[in-house]
Amino acid sequence: MAVPLAISLPRLRTHIEALSRFGRNPDGKGITRSCWSPAHEEARAWLLQRMKEGGLSTWVDEAGNTFGRLGNGGPSVVTGSHIDTVPNGGPLDGALGVLAGLECLQTIREAGLATKRPLAVVAWSDEEGRYGSLFGSRAFTGRLDLGQISTLRSLDGESLVEAMARAGYDASRVAEARCDPRTLHAYVELHIEQGPHLEQARIPIGLVEGIVGIRRNRLTFIGEPDHAGTTPMARRKDAFLAACEYALKAREHIVRKGSGRSVTNFGRIELAPGVSNIVPARAVLMQEMRELDARILARLDRECVTLARTVARRRGLRVVVDTLSRTDPARCAPRVMDAVQAACDALRLRTRRMPSGAGHDAQNLAGVTASGMLFIPSRGGRSHRPDEMSDWKAIGRGTNALLQTLLRLAG
Amino acid sequence: MAVPLAISLPRLRTHIEALSRFGRNPDGKGITRSCWSPAHEEARAWLLQRMKEGGLSTWVDEAGNTFGRLGNGGPSVVTGSHIDTVPNGGPLDGALGVLAGLECLQTIREAGLATKRPLAVVAWSDEEGRYGSLFGSRAFTGRLDLGQISTLRSLDGESLVEAMARAGYDASRVAEARCDPRTLHAYVELHIEQGPHLEQARIPIGLVEGIVGIRRNRLTFIGEPDHAGTTPMARRKDAFLAACEYALKAREHIVRKGSGRSVTNFGRIELAPGVSNIVPARAVLMQEMRELDARILARLDRECVTLARTVARRRGLRVVVDTLSRTDPARCAPRVMDAVQAACDALRLRTRRMPSGAGHDAQNLAGVTASGMLFIPSRGGRSHRPDEMSDWKAIGRGTNALLQTLLRLAG
Repeated sequence: MAVPLAISLPRLRTHIEALSRFGRNPDGKGITRSCWSPAHEEARAWLLQRMKEGGLSTWVDEAGNTFGRLGNGGPSVVTGSHIDTVPNGGPLDGALGVLAGLECLQTIREAGLATKRPLAVVAWSDEEGRYGSLFGSRAFTGRLDLGQISTLRSLDGESLVEAMARAGYDASRVAEARCDPRTLHAYVELHIEQGPHLEQARIPIGLVEGIVGIRRNRLTFIGEPDHAGTTPMARRKDAFLAACEYALKAREHIVRKGSGRSVTNFGRIELAPGVSNIVPARAVLMQEMRELDARILARLDRECVTLARTVARRRGLRVVVDTLSRTDPARCAPRVMDAVQAACDALRLRTRRMPSGAGHDAQNLAGVTASGMLFIPSRGGRSHRPDEMSDWKAIGRGTNALLQTLLRLAG
Repeated sequence: MAVPLAISLPRLRTHIEALSRFGRNPDGKGITRSCWSPAHEEARAWLLQRMKEGGLSTWVDEAGNTFGRLGNGGPSVVTGSHIDTVPNGGPLDGALGVLAGLECLQTIREAGLATKRPLAVVAWSDEEGRYGSLFGSRAFTGRLDLGQISTLRSLDGESLVEAMARAGYDASRVAEARCDPRTLHAYVELHIEQGPHLEQARIPIGLVEGIVGIRRNRLTFIGEPDHAGTTPMARRKDAFLAACEYALKAREHIVRKGSGRSVTNFGRIELAPGVSNIVPARAVLMQEMRELDARILARLDRECVTLARTVARRRGLRVVVDTLSRTDPARCAPRVMDAVQAACDALRLRTRRMPSGAGHDAQNLAGVTASGMLFIPSRGGRSHRPDEMSDWKAIGRGTNALLQTLLRLAG
């Protein structure tokens, strides 16, 4: 049996460690590399230089998506991820997929292999959502609400137009980043799992079946701002306690009546008037729900609205439910999943089929081409924090699986 | 039977309506007259003028307590309340007690009655607690932590030293406001009930037995900031859901195991990191408990701490409980209660004995003299809001009951 082509793990490690220095926090631990920030733009310049050194032709589109290509003519096989991070994030989320993709293309070029289809690696713009998550891949796949671009502001108050201008981009041209789907043959993305399953099961590769859909709802419970000393307990219309009862019951409902992998989170709540001696008259609760099966997700969403109304009515309150955002689940393409499975079989790497509980650019690509993902274990299941890591051997295994997948897809 | 001396309700109404214009919000509804604010200082100047017109001798002490006196020599019988309001408050909380007291003294002076003891009316400074509740009466009764004065800041960031200086007062002299208890014979305060009991029972006068003690605790539940999409539900250590479970259970415990009149409120909660897609790692919950019986209050406090620890432990979290403030319950003096009851009997006004669920300056006065209160009904039980009101007839009845009480106490 021939020894399969293999990537250079030392070179990949050097690249991952080099990229992690852009936006390193003063404490030397976490990384803050928000899209369009000076740290991000320095990282982009560094990446373009590495792509050129790897023998790729490079360009950046109008949405800030950064490409490197090997070969010409016909629909491309694309891999990649993103180089922006959450505030105080870690070194692998996004960076791994981009640098592993670069490593694969460089390895193929250095081996002198000619693939039937061209290969490309991409760093999608603003995946983490400084201006709405998956910004660059939404622009590329035509899923961006172009009318909103002039009004988008980050949490720190900077407008997208200003941020792009500072980085040398013209926000009014973002629409031009939209791709022609006929130029694409497939998309495959390598990522850390961001959860504990692979590590617990000691399985090196997660074969992603699809990316969950996400609902974000805002529930506003409306009661009465009574005096917290003089109003009898039985007469109070306490918006906070209604929100508490709802949150606990909605969590139980989603655990018991979901798919078994359905999840929900209440990450924010605000009370008004928000003082110790007045009964909360208003509780604004943010709820997020994630599920791979679109019908189950829609059912859970409906059932939670009904539950909120029941809880509010029984307590003599009102509730208003607003949908803040919804993304549909995206199934991975069988053609890409088969290529990943065949690559792992050839490398004798065990796989487990699993959904992605996090959103990824691959879900947008699924709208324009055959799209898929593979995961490697996250140490302790951790991500979006400074101690996000994987083992270097696991990174090597994942990147070689990506290499074999790309070779299969590119023919 | 002789017709008893009676106050002028039209004059009192004119005064209540006039005072309500200081600090009126731009919408013409609520009143915001925080202590030391320009609106409050204009109201104080107006009040001093009305006291002088009523024939009283006036002074303001070093803590900003504003006095008007009728007669001289020997321990005084004091009545009053406060002229500051909560943000967006109403026209009666505090203002009623001050202006009814002024009306009583003016009525007595105009009738040419000579009482055995001098009478005084007072507007206590900062009752609503821009810099800690009951500020002025704490200074007067020696219950103020003088070491803190230089560090106190309001929620809007202004220091007490700056606020007092702007109003013409020297914060370093607040200690001089402390009274000599030998100059006091009794204190009695008229206030709206701020609850629904008198209105529901159609009883004109509440005979206050005592003022509840208040505990304010801060509970910090500490979990883990996991990814809200990829972390299995069973592995999460969600600080918000722990706080929800605790709040619902603590509320039930206090209703079932308290005195029957024990109350609790959760007016504020803050989650960290406070974003939709991260499990709350920290929930900081403010809890307030009120009860007239000191032993029951202490027991409920202890039991709630135990409950919080049980909830946290069962969910794999930690909890830290900090006491933010505690005031002890204050029993009203039998001598003052008897005088109120005799006054109401003479006026054929039915009374109901009741605790005050809200804090009042009378609780501080209880530490230095015989102290008591009487309540009139609050329309709809409402207070601390723009539509806080009572009926004018009820105000007239309450002020005449105060007049007869003062005449009995002053001899």
